[in-house]
Amino acid sequence: MLTRPPYAPLGADTLPDRLWHRPELTRLLGPPAQWRVREVGDGNLNLVFIVEGRDGSLVVKQALPYARVVGESWPMSLDRAFFEYEASLRLGARDPGRMPTLHLFDREQALQVMEHLTPHIILRKGLIAGTRYPALGEHLGHFLARTLFRGSDWAMETAHRKADLALFAGNVELCGITEDLFFTDPFFDCPRNRHNPALDAEVATVRADRALKLAALRLKARFCTGAETLLHGDFHTGSVMVSAQDSRVIDAEFATYGPMGFDIGSLLANLWMAAFSQEGLRPGDADARAYRRWIRDLAAQIWRVFTDEFARLWRTERAGILGGHDLFEAQSDREGAEQALAARLAAIWHDTLGFAGLEMYRRVLGLAHIAEFEAIGDEAARGACERRALRLGRALAVTPERFADVAAVNALAVELDGGER
Amino acid sequence: MLTRPPYAPLGADTLPDRLWHRPELTRLLGPPAQWRVREVGDGNLNLVFIVEGRDGSLVVKQALPYARVVGESWPMSLDRAFFEYEASLRLGARDPGRMPTLHLFDREQALQVMEHLTPHIILRKGLIAGTRYPALGEHLGHFLARTLFRGSDWAMETAHRKADLALFAGNVELCGITEDLFFTDPFFDCPRNRHNPALDAEVATVRADRALKLAALRLKARFCTGAETLLHGDFHTGSVMVSAQDSRVIDAEFATYGPMGFDIGSLLANLWMAAFSQEGLRPGDADARAYRRWIRDLAAQIWRVFTDEFARLWRTERAGILGGHDLFEAQSDREGAEQALAARLAAIWHDTLGFAGLEMYRRVLGLAHIAEFEAIGDEAARGACERRALRLGRALAVTPERFADVAAVNALAVELDGGER
Repeated sequence: MLTRPPYAPLGADTLPDRLWHRPELTRLLGPPAQWRVREVGDGNLNLVFIVEGRDGSLVVKQALPYARVVGESWPMSLDRAFFEYEASLRLGARDPGRMPTLHLFDREQALQVMEHLTPHIILRKGLIAGTRYPALGEHLGHFLARTLFRGSDWAMETAHRKADLALFAGNVELCGITEDLFFTDPFFDCPRNRHNPALDAEVATVRADRALKLAALRLKARFCTGAETLLHGDFHTGSVMVSAQDSRVIDAEFATYGPMGFDIGSLLANLWMAAFSQEGLRPGDADARAYRRWIRDLAAQIWRVFTDEFARLWRTERAGILGGHDLFEAQSDREGAEQALAARLAAIWHDTLGFAGLEMYRRVLGLAHIAEFEAIGDEAARGACERRALRLGRALAVTPERFADVAAVNALAVELDGGER
Repeated sequence: MLTRPPYAPLGADTLPDRLWHRPELTRLLGPPAQWRVREVGDGNLNLVFIVEGRDGSLVVKQALPYARVVGESWPMSLDRAFFEYEASLRLGARDPGRMPTLHLFDREQALQVMEHLTPHIILRKGLIAGTRYPALGEHLGHFLARTLFRGSDWAMETAHRKADLALFAGNVELCGITEDLFFTDPFFDCPRNRHNPALDAEVATVRADRALKLAALRLKARFCTGAETLLHGDFHTGSVMVSAQDSRVIDAEFATYGPMGFDIGSLLANLWMAAFSQEGLRPGDADARAYRRWIRDLAAQIWRVFTDEFARLWRTERAGILGGHDLFEAQSDREGAEQALAARLAAIWHDTLGFAGLEMYRRVLGLAHIAEFEAIGDEAARGACERRALRLGRALAVTPERFADVAAVNALAVELDGGER
């Protein structure tokens, strides 16, 4: 009798011996003897291999029993591969074509085999390089609207929604990383934190900033208790892969039920930070200013596409228990349903601003920094960019009522950047 | 081999034959030959028996596979007995002594055996009779603070809290009753509804009241997505049993994770309605006016005791991930923690007002009416009382910002009652 081997991490050298018998791979790659394997994981948590064969290529992603970014001293359950798989199925179905195709999931090995996206690169790298992606705003705005709406009690049959809520309530460990790293660590002297020494004064200010800490704790409660929809849960520019015409979303292992504004705020914050980084990344480059405007326009476009698509789904797919058809359309009050939509979008926008603000703090003062800022070698130049992010972040988190729309946020970003000059 | 008998509803005549072999009963009741059984269920969903024996008495509660209030045409899962049992264990542990002692749970028979509360009566009946309960406000304020705080991410270890969230996410059916009956039915022409013909004009007004319907839908989203704590879920004056000195909480089968203000608002609304009913119930009774003031004072006391106890727990048991000690106490900022508490209480109060407002609508225009109003035989007199409840309810649900505290609500209640005269 065959017994299933226990979990063991793959290596580039051992992968063919371990997976040669899996038809999901051989069918797409051709004979195992010709496979070429390289480990390409640059994320914080997993092993990632690209396997190229005679007939094609695939990505093999395997969870490690610890957080790769820290090492074996931070043990971490292999179950996260299961939650990533379950979340990817759902998000992929809610906006078809936007996630990589999944070919195989092996729970015991915490292993997924998926489409090799090529010639895609991580969006964050594309933003550092100053590349423009004409279809990106539409893709991401649609993805946000479709996944956030369709995973909610506004759209789903509620027994199904509650079963999903229960399932993803099991993703305690990765949720716990978000809860700590996003909402708490940056606001106290946590040993995991690190920061640019040029920001020592800002760090001292943050420790004494009661209004900011109250906002952080309020937003943490929103995140932990606001079970609106299945979030991607880590939706930044490092979780998007792009080519000239295509955009794909990866790395859904932080998925949890939470407030819609969390995914949107995470993404927009990373765009605003990317814009702030341009001056430090490309000093003297004539395109840097035009490009940071392109990034800010992209943020505005994503929110506009999101609201348009969310409104379309509201009008056509509002089949869940929060739909309220009985109260409005069935009583010939279409305008009432439109007002309910406007109220919902206003609530999402309010959350979006708060979460975007905190994302900037954790990326500058917490554990997980962003390549845009890290790539600026000069501490003072880098600090100048990071300081702008903190200023914008504080305004968004503490005084969200100042920002009626993305244009108002972009206006402050421009002002912090010293104007359009 | 013994096989477990399949589910079958008990009858007063068959109960001894079915349960004589259970030591949990015989130990407390004495020999089965001497048991006297009567069915006393006047609730909407279950069979309830009082079993008296030589040595004592017990209550046996069994779920029926349909909603008793409607009949077999409304089938309902027996699992609700399981959720009631699980919720009762938790709520009972969070405020010891406030729920009846549980002696036996049989999942297959959907059956619980519990302490027979005597000489207790249902609080609603005591309010109709005009009885004063000196310890009631303290008991209920403490119960609310302790159960709502201790079931939340402010207090619990989060993996445990998330496991409970997942467990109670399975209570779909009873949750669905709340979702429909509380938040939707009263605001459209639902066949389940009924109302006093004297309120025909009010019903027409409600159908056209867009602001009210928007508030109802917003509050439904709060209820469905605001997973703050384990709620009792049906916390009105019919779920409290009282004696001169004791108060107990029963009927937790609607338990679900939801916003703290839901249980508080349900209870306070029932007190305000009980006060409105006094003039119709006891016309010309000199005590009726003093008694309705006693009820309003009770509402104020419950909120005051709740906030005091919630604050005490905040300062001494805030061990969960939403505690924020790292942000405040650990940074020598006790005042910050106090401000976070004030913000939390303000948010709970805001929710409380909205849910209280809707509770009044569903009790006057929906399926499940309250005995205080039903007992007023004269339609016009009853309508006058009910109309005041609807007016107060609308103000609470649509313009909660008008009410800074319970005193402001009580002041409007007095005004609607025609002043203190």
